Amino acid sequence: MKFDIVTIIAPGLLGASLAAAMREKGMAGEIRIWARRAEVRKACQREDWCDCVFDDLEQSVVDADLVWIASPVGVVGRIARVIAPHLRKGAIVSDVGSTKSMIVEQCEAALADSGTHFVGSHPMAGSEKSGHEYADASLFEGMPCFVTPTDQTENGALNQILEFWSLLGMELTETTPEVHDRIVASVSHLPHLVASALSYTLAKSVDSTWLKHAGNGLADTTRIASGSVPVWKDIIQQNREQIMPMLSSLILNLEEIKYRIEAGDADTLGEILEQGKSFRDQLN
Amino acid sequence: MKFDIVTIIAPGLLGASLAAAMREKGMAGEIRIWARRAEVRKACQREDWCDCVFDDLEQSVVDADLVWIASPVGVVGRIARVIAPHLRKGAIVSDVGSTKSMIVEQCEAALADSGTHFVGSHPMAGSEKSGHEYADASLFEGMPCFVTPTDQTENGALNQILEFWSLLGMELTETTPEVHDRIVASVSHLPHLVASALSYTLAKSVDSTWLKHAGNGLADTTRIASGSVPVWKDIIQQNREQIMPMLSSLILNLEEIKYRIEAGDADTLGEILEQGKSFRDQLN
Repeated sequence: MKFDIVTIIAPGLLGASLAAAMREKGMAGEIRIWARRAEVRKACQREDWCDCVFDDLEQSVVDADLVWIASPVGVVGRIARVIAPHLRKGAIVSDVGSTKSMIVEQCEAALADSGTHFVGSHPMAGSEKSGHEYADASLFEGMPCFVTPTDQTENGALNQILEFWSLLGMELTETTPEVHDRIVASVSHLPHLVASALSYTLAKSVDSTWLKHAGNGLADTTRIASGSVPVWKDIIQQNREQIMPMLSSLILNLEEIKYRIEAGDADTLGEILEQGKSFRDQLN
Repeated sequence: MKFDIVTIIAPGLLGASLAAAMREKGMAGEIRIWARRAEVRKACQREDWCDCVFDDLEQSVVDADLVWIASPVGVVGRIARVIAPHLRKGAIVSDVGSTKSMIVEQCEAALADSGTHFVGSHPMAGSEKSGHEYADASLFEGMPCFVTPTDQTENGALNQILEFWSLLGMELTETTPEVHDRIVASVSHLPHLVASALSYTLAKSVDSTWLKHAGNGLADTTRIASGSVPVWKDIIQQNREQIMPMLSSLILNLEEIKYRIEAGDADTLGEILEQGKSFRDQLN
């Protein structure tokens, strides 16, 4: 599989790693990078995974066979609207966003009459690091990836995107945008909010000299709270419909735990901890 | 530093690792192990860090110079009461419990007129593994350790316990039982409850086929929920006075996050995430 011209819009960790992986595997002739900031364009130009940089979004997609929108989820739809009139017929557009319902709806609407094909993707790769400077061609290897077609998705484009992620070593799951969003609300977005809420609580109450007494438990439990704030703020807003009931149920469970501790009901507290442990033990 | 006879009461991960470390460093002549269960006694007998096993708690401490109570925190006080009349004059008794106020109070009362010396310890070593089979002589190396004297603590005994942990490579902090309990409520017990509550919430709502879509974030955030339930049930009950206000404040913060998401107040949500991130970034 080789695309003549690939445009990557917004080279953060994922976009830049995509470029690096395509270059390494010879999957792209020309790799174009669009970045908003001049210093990012300058830095990308020095990388072997970037053939040319653009500051003009519309220009960057002209003649491209494949366009990756790797921006924060909150602006993917807007970018699709801007590039739509400038895409060549038959071009494939995909994204790497952590939410899917809103993005897929917005992109399908934006590209509806352009003769191009949108396919939603969500590669679950990355780390608490962010930015093109951490680009890693092996970032995707062995990690899970969602592809979320709808009844509007063109089959040929879908198959190309599936093949694309397979070549990068990802474990594919094809599902609807809605099911995707329910799953990630549980296994990703709720854990993120929990880590952030714990860190926020401790930020307000803990003397910083206490931190040297923290074992690995605190570091592990809060690790993802280090993630990029603009990225996560967007994700949470975009997937709030699925996140809200999970968050409510977490709060209720914490209230129950609090009540059991107050009441000295060690048996019920033990049952709660036991069910939590059984769930966690499945992950190893 | 070498003790002629050391008794370790209840060889879980910490007790067994203590025995292994003392043997490796030549810090003990005879190492005695008391265990409640016959199969544990049998298993310990095969280890080079165990010279003899006891099923009689009272007998196990006779003539011992140093006694480690390494049981779950809920029974440390009771064990101290049982062994008190059988200890030789001048013996030092310490523990490895994750809570201190209640334990120190109970042990000081139990040993008050016995001519022996109690010093509370809390080595913050361990993992989500539990049991003597994971004994590890290097478990303590470089990890934090509290020693919690009171105005009743004898100075010679305190210095010996401080030296003991130093020889095992631990980073020592001397503080009161109360300050210790406040610190661990924040950096250890609250994170544990959070990890358990998240796991418990997901246990009740997540289809287990979804777990293959989980990245490292979920695994990290819930890791400590795998800890021993009886151990943690005890810890939480023993330190509930310090834990309750932290738990209440966490719940309030989650309510605020929920409200900000519902209201679409991305700016305030972003500030909360930012403060959480700043706190977390200090830990690296």
